[in-house]
Amino acid sequence: MNEPLDYAEQSGVVEQQVRRHRGGAVETAADRIGQEWPVALIFNGISHAVMMCTPRDLEAFAVGFAISEGIVERGSDIHDIEVTMHGEELPFPHAQVELTVVQQAFVALKEKRRALTGRTGCGVCGIESIDLLDLAPERVSDTGFLSRLASDAIAHAARALPEHQALTKLTGGLHAAAWCAADGSIGRAFEDVGRHNALDKLIGQLVLDRTDTTDGFVFLSSRASYELVRKAARVGIPMVATISAPSSLAVTIARQAGIRLLSFCREAGYVDYETA
Amino acid sequence: MNEPLDYAEQSGVVEQQVRRHRGGAVETAADRIGQEWPVALIFNGISHAVMMCTPRDLEAFAVGFAISEGIVERGSDIHDIEVTMHGEELPFPHAQVELTVVQQAFVALKEKRRALTGRTGCGVCGIESIDLLDLAPERVSDTGFLSRLASDAIAHAARALPEHQALTKLTGGLHAAAWCAADGSIGRAFEDVGRHNALDKLIGQLVLDRTDTTDGFVFLSSRASYELVRKAARVGIPMVATISAPSSLAVTIARQAGIRLLSFCREAGYVDYETA
Repeated sequence: MNEPLDYAEQSGVVEQQVRRHRGGAVETAADRIGQEWPVALIFNGISHAVMMCTPRDLEAFAVGFAISEGIVERGSDIHDIEVTMHGEELPFPHAQVELTVVQQAFVALKEKRRALTGRTGCGVCGIESIDLLDLAPERVSDTGFLSRLASDAIAHAARALPEHQALTKLTGGLHAAAWCAADGSIGRAFEDVGRHNALDKLIGQLVLDRTDTTDGFVFLSSRASYELVRKAARVGIPMVATISAPSSLAVTIARQAGIRLLSFCREAGYVDYETA
Repeated sequence: MNEPLDYAEQSGVVEQQVRRHRGGAVETAADRIGQEWPVALIFNGISHAVMMCTPRDLEAFAVGFAISEGIVERGSDIHDIEVTMHGEELPFPHAQVELTVVQQAFVALKEKRRALTGRTGCGVCGIESIDLLDLAPERVSDTGFLSRLASDAIAHAARALPEHQALTKLTGGLHAAAWCAADGSIGRAFEDVGRHNALDKLIGQLVLDRTDTTDGFVFLSSRASYELVRKAARVGIPMVATISAPSSLAVTIARQAGIRLLSFCREAGYVDYETA
């Protein structure tokens, strides 16, 4: 049970026997489950955070996390990344990602850590009181992308996304984040048990590929929370489209950032939260 | 925009104008969106955490958080709770919950905070390295509940849940956590933009009501992550049923805790992850 599948080590999926109940009938069957591992992020030798994450595309994940959380400003601030998988280790499988970042970013991170000394925040991480909470997002520059957006871009992306959800097809339950062009075609897509991680993987890969993050939109299989919008703002993404509902703060933060937020995105339609 | 609805101040829902696109047609309409507010939790005068939360049932939320995160052991360890809503305040609406807990719990919390000094964890909150990660859940006692579980309990609960999702009906997108008896009937249910918060609200209310948390099961509209299973273990809940998929770690932690985990729970059937 919980054994990695043969066909792809670190595939992000484990197989185990389950009992399927349907009406009165029960059958035992092999089922596939999305992997959730603790993944430690270590900057210049100092442990910074442990994220619960699907253990694949961890290099992209670490780059995306470092950028979307404001630890580094750009990909070139990261000199080296080393991913170590501990798939067999007790008490539970886990992974470590060691990043070497420019001295300036490391000094700033140490400074931030010193300023936060003694805080053991849960929730908004590292933050213990409202006074310390800075939700204000970066303001996204208008590069004209929205004017180039095809009228059927959302329908196109919604139709295309399932092809990019290999793990969801196997497991029935991961989140996906996709990078779409103005016509709604999908360039890159990543999956994870966590929606924030899926977006971090996508942002990281875009940065590694030197893709212009102001010239496209993200399409997310999840709801829109404020954090997803804020991460998008950090790299200047002009539009966020989600399959499920937004929260009130996601709408507010999108408006402050100048990001266009579309939710309930399906082939047949979508809802635009920008007020006239 | 983003104004609380008249009919219920602090209803958890805001109303705003949106543009609905359907095929080529666009209509402007009033839409409802689930509220996401920063909610500060303050223990004996000291700020501890800020959670992003739907601002209703905050007393239950605070009690559930305190217990499911191990800050207090039982409801009677909490002497007083005071909720203050700051719905109009800039830069964003927020709430504060001040708890007065027994001295012993407060001393333990201060001790824990001292031990964590300088950690600015993201992800698994307050935890910065794998070595510090203690995922081992409490072991749930067998009180015989599972032997009393009706064979159609899941079908019953799945059929009944939508009646308890008033906010989801309005907004299309909140999570629900419900407390179910052995026949699948729903006693209590709570909604929140966050699935962990919905479960904390439920656990808190069960504790406030002095409900026996070993004599029932939780039914969640979401996926099963390890944290949800672990929170359930903290109060001895013998079974967790979710509408969507589990993660691999949720399955592992449920097995360690002795909690029965059922996922993909629908009227027509479910999947049981307990291995024979």
